[in-house]
Amino acid sequence: MKGKLITFEGCEGSGKSTQLKLLAEKLDNLGVDYIMTREPGGSAIAEQIRAVILDGKNTAMCDECEALLYAASRVQLLKEVIVPALESGKLVVCDRYVDSSLAYQGIARGLGEDFIASINAAALGKYSPDMTIFLDISPEDAFRRKNGADKDDRMEQQGMAFHKKVYQGYRRLAEKYPRIRSVDCSGTKYETSDKIWQLFRQNGIV
Amino acid sequence: MKGKLITFEGCEGSGKSTQLKLLAEKLDNLGVDYIMTREPGGSAIAEQIRAVILDGKNTAMCDECEALLYAASRVQLLKEVIVPALESGKLVVCDRYVDSSLAYQGIARGLGEDFIASINAAALGKYSPDMTIFLDISPEDAFRRKNGADKDDRMEQQGMAFHKKVYQGYRRLAEKYPRIRSVDCSGTKYETSDKIWQLFRQNGIV
Repeated sequence: MKGKLITFEGCEGSGKSTQLKLLAEKLDNLGVDYIMTREPGGSAIAEQIRAVILDGKNTAMCDECEALLYAASRVQLLKEVIVPALESGKLVVCDRYVDSSLAYQGIARGLGEDFIASINAAALGKYSPDMTIFLDISPEDAFRRKNGADKDDRMEQQGMAFHKKVYQGYRRLAEKYPRIRSVDCSGTKYETSDKIWQLFRQNGIV
Repeated sequence: MKGKLITFEGCEGSGKSTQLKLLAEKLDNLGVDYIMTREPGGSAIAEQIRAVILDGKNTAMCDECEALLYAASRVQLLKEVIVPALESGKLVVCDRYVDSSLAYQGIARGLGEDFIASINAAALGKYSPDMTIFLDISPEDAFRRKNGADKDDRMEQQGMAFHKKVYQGYRRLAEKYPRIRSVDCSGTKYETSDKIWQLFRQNGIV
């Protein structure tokens, strides 16, 4: 495995998309050989699974089913997209990865971190991220900045109590795993982007 | 839990559909309160997952993804359909269940029985079948009787070597789990149906 795997995590509206765009500009300027991908989704099969997970009509979906679908989408993206890119020496940047399942399904839904770890063995073992950027902003602040949730997205429809649990979950994970680096997002998007870039530099990612 | 859960297992073309139809006639004649369901699928969400699993175009699907999708479909069917029926005292008859994953993904695909057991904790624990009917017919005989595989079904497209491994897997499971009852299918469909009905009688299912 020659390339490195960097994942971005955070609550809904934490600014992952914005930060990934700003990061891409910096990587482009530096001429880094990288790919950006996202989950759930990121390959044809994984996108089919994503559609089932996020379908706003699937309100009857049980928590275990949701967790297993995320794990299925993840391992497919891993084998089809991430592993080949890493093996060819590319930097891989992924919008959400296994910590999303630990925070959302394991902690906030209450399925437990052990169950999530067992169904995500590859993503927490051989293909654990080299570094994870946690965009640390409370769900209250994030939703205020985003002007509300997407009504067609089943995950964004969850109430504020749920998103607070996710946030606390992420903070707990950041204490547990040294690979997770918390980035304070209270400044402008450019200030946050500079903080992330510093972490990329300090950890020899670029 | 007042009702009982009976599952039917076997290779492609082993005659499960035919036997379930004949069983339904007997249950109807006796006035038994039962439901019949199938997996993957059996509920709206589980059917969406089934469509992804069986789509003949999804040739790039990795083994772990396949196993996780089966587990997701199963637990959704369990929570949405099987558990409510059992709790209301109904007999539940299911066309395929956790032994399919143990035989197909665990043994034939080589993911291992432990991994399959860990992602199917509910179906091997609290909601383990009360009795499992294994329709014992070799894949060679089954395909001969069926006149070939369905070209649009990703699972049926697998080669004969794979289906032989599945068959050997089922036989190994039948030795391991006393709940699995092997039924010799070399006679007519009516003879096989009578053997199954005897097992239902002997085990106090009806």
